[in-house]
Amino acid sequence: MNAVDIIRRKRDGAALDEDTIAWLVGAYTSGAVPDYQMAAFLMAVVWRGMSREETVALTLAMLRSGTELRVRERVAPVADKHSTGGVGDKVTLAVAPLVAACGLPVAKMTGRGLGHTGGTVDKLESITGLRVELDPDEFLEVLERHGLALSAQSRALAPADGMMYALRDVTATIDSIPLIAASIMSKKLAVGPSHLLLDVKVGSGAFMKTEDDARRLAETMARIGADAGVRTVAALSAMDQPLGRAVGNALEVAEAVDILRGRGPGDVTALCLHETATLLHMAGLAASEEEGHTRAERAIQDGSGLAKLAEVVAAQGGDAGQIEDTSRLPRAPYREVIAAPRSGYVARMDAERIGMASVRLGAGRLKKGDPIDHAVGLVLLAKVGDRRDAGAPLVEAHARDAAQVAGIRDELLGAYAWSDAPSAPMPLLLGSVSGGGG
Amino acid sequence: MNAVDIIRRKRDGAALDEDTIAWLVGAYTSGAVPDYQMAAFLMAVVWRGMSREETVALTLAMLRSGTELRVRERVAPVADKHSTGGVGDKVTLAVAPLVAACGLPVAKMTGRGLGHTGGTVDKLESITGLRVELDPDEFLEVLERHGLALSAQSRALAPADGMMYALRDVTATIDSIPLIAASIMSKKLAVGPSHLLLDVKVGSGAFMKTEDDARRLAETMARIGADAGVRTVAALSAMDQPLGRAVGNALEVAEAVDILRGRGPGDVTALCLHETATLLHMAGLAASEEEGHTRAERAIQDGSGLAKLAEVVAAQGGDAGQIEDTSRLPRAPYREVIAAPRSGYVARMDAERIGMASVRLGAGRLKKGDPIDHAVGLVLLAKVGDRRDAGAPLVEAHARDAAQVAGIRDELLGAYAWSDAPSAPMPLLLGSVSGGGG
Repeated sequence: MNAVDIIRRKRDGAALDEDTIAWLVGAYTSGAVPDYQMAAFLMAVVWRGMSREETVALTLAMLRSGTELRVRERVAPVADKHSTGGVGDKVTLAVAPLVAACGLPVAKMTGRGLGHTGGTVDKLESITGLRVELDPDEFLEVLERHGLALSAQSRALAPADGMMYALRDVTATIDSIPLIAASIMSKKLAVGPSHLLLDVKVGSGAFMKTEDDARRLAETMARIGADAGVRTVAALSAMDQPLGRAVGNALEVAEAVDILRGRGPGDVTALCLHETATLLHMAGLAASEEEGHTRAERAIQDGSGLAKLAEVVAAQGGDAGQIEDTSRLPRAPYREVIAAPRSGYVARMDAERIGMASVRLGAGRLKKGDPIDHAVGLVLLAKVGDRRDAGAPLVEAHARDAAQVAGIRDELLGAYAWSDAPSAPMPLLLGSVSGGGG
Repeated sequence: MNAVDIIRRKRDGAALDEDTIAWLVGAYTSGAVPDYQMAAFLMAVVWRGMSREETVALTLAMLRSGTELRVRERVAPVADKHSTGGVGDKVTLAVAPLVAACGLPVAKMTGRGLGHTGGTVDKLESITGLRVELDPDEFLEVLERHGLALSAQSRALAPADGMMYALRDVTATIDSIPLIAASIMSKKLAVGPSHLLLDVKVGSGAFMKTEDDARRLAETMARIGADAGVRTVAALSAMDQPLGRAVGNALEVAEAVDILRGRGPGDVTALCLHETATLLHMAGLAASEEEGHTRAERAIQDGSGLAKLAEVVAAQGGDAGQIEDTSRLPRAPYREVIAAPRSGYVARMDAERIGMASVRLGAGRLKKGDPIDHAVGLVLLAKVGDRRDAGAPLVEAHARDAAQVAGIRDELLGAYAWSDAPSAPMPLLLGSVSGGGG
């Protein structure tokens, strides 16, 4: 095997076989193939794409670069759930405990946020004392005892993905559906659930800006899961406006608790119920999606979902009292209501710009390793389709001081488009793809 | 400026402005932009190409990464001549002294061979004692005194090209017309002739396999030359079979001497006369190409071309006696005639395979820095269109021993295609492109 030859073949549009891809990833991970050859290869992949077989081979090669946790050999069935990321996406914080409360264990390893999208680990770290960097043994132990474990992705899993992602980030080779699919799926398969639900976000606030691209990514990931023997469903959901009302870490934890108490915003609550129902049905714990839906609603009404979250927070060293009383979560010292600049209906909200405004308050990162401020963020008091009079409350900004809010006001208001007539409601669920498998 | 952003723009097919390209090349040369970012950028260029303006900007940025020799400020007019490389291409060894003997100084910096194509510097080094690594001052001094200087490319000229070429070589990003054009032209412009003749080879033994690609490369280089104020003509010539009869370093020097004595093979002699005439006409030393042709023939008949080569060889420390008597050049200890395997007409010869057979005898390099054997090579006793009976002499191999010849016999014979009927003669000159300028 020869790296130049492999790069040349991909450059010329040829398909690479499994052994070739395995060799390349192995040689890169060991340092035998340098960054510059991998960078040229990755750009050739952005150019030429990868077949289904190549993408599966890449995923498996990345998976095999490290430890495999194989959670389903310890607990079965066991579910995992992944979102490609959006603005205000606190769904995992509600769905994981709801599913676990309904009797399906959830092994959740998750990432940190970058750019306009938040990360579940950052949100969890709003809770005082909560340890999210569990080592694999502890992760399995919490999972076995509580039916739910929440951790940052272990560096021992799929280390090739970490190396390749860091390289892609600095070589403009992020935007490739096979590379995105292999990156996500290598980490998911390294955990090793029996059932996997993927939520592929599409729209202005998501990495996938078009429904076509999102569908291709969903199909690619669903097939990889199926080929690896994991029952996988990939759902498409809209990220044209932020999800729910809260954007920012502690604010989103509080909103997730609201959902678990049955008083969350309609859009995000509907998505949480849908995802919970899908997972329960996939794993055979509900005979139909409808039955799954009913069970999910019951876990909200009887408080068992919220109790499960509090139980696991406590098990991982966190202050469960902050779950019972979210006013005890970190709170920003300065709050200011930003008023609607005109009367009318909110016609569109640019989720990415709203996400970036929140990042500029300190809620997210412009680059890896930046510190974040868990208390700050935005509460969106109107969503698409809502009417406001000029001067009425539009957004509540949670910040360190007035200057911070002044600094984002224009960008934030620029994210809104207004109309004089009400527009049709935007659908949230756009379909789903089943990869079979398992 | 930000390298990721520049890579992304080229990846997405945008054109980059001059400042952006200058910044990138400068930052790469200084080490501020690492190899992996340049590798991704280069692959994006292979993918998306470059506009004329971008290619000129890249050339100038590479040129400005080092010293400019500006020979035309010392000697004017002054010519340079470059071939994109082929098998058996000893044209520079004859044309440079012919042109100089006709009164037009020639400042020739040239490269080493790699793969199936030979390099003029390697051929020159067949001559005992000849120093080809002239520093810029010595190069100018020899040029001023003798009207001809022959040197390896100085590392002080266009160092960005050396760095980028080395990176392209290991990242499968060689095959890009703008990158090839910028690489060649940055080195030529760094020498700084007033008149430049480019010979773009096309065919099985050349880097450009199709006439379309060769014409695009010729046009691109001619335009860069014109934009930089150098009178430039780019000629296309066939490299479907090796040029002349000799392939290998000392063997090619001997054949160049044969050409200068008026007894070289017809094809390569015709090309040498044509190139000499073109340069004399370009520089105004002949009123027409015909007159240039007549002057070139006279410089052969009166021995002034050969005398000029011997003079410069002596000036650069070489044994001019080997030019007078080429039997004193390095000679391989073992010679073997390989016979025609069948009767018929030679229909095709794969120049690349013949070049690689010669490399395997030791006449060339598989990788940079490999030592080469100046004495070995092949003498082709039949060319396309010639008839041979089975068992008649086809090739004379010059080697270290019989085992070497046995090792290449099949590859060599596999380079020949035969037919029972004579085929039409192959044209050698395929046209030319003038960039204007100067």
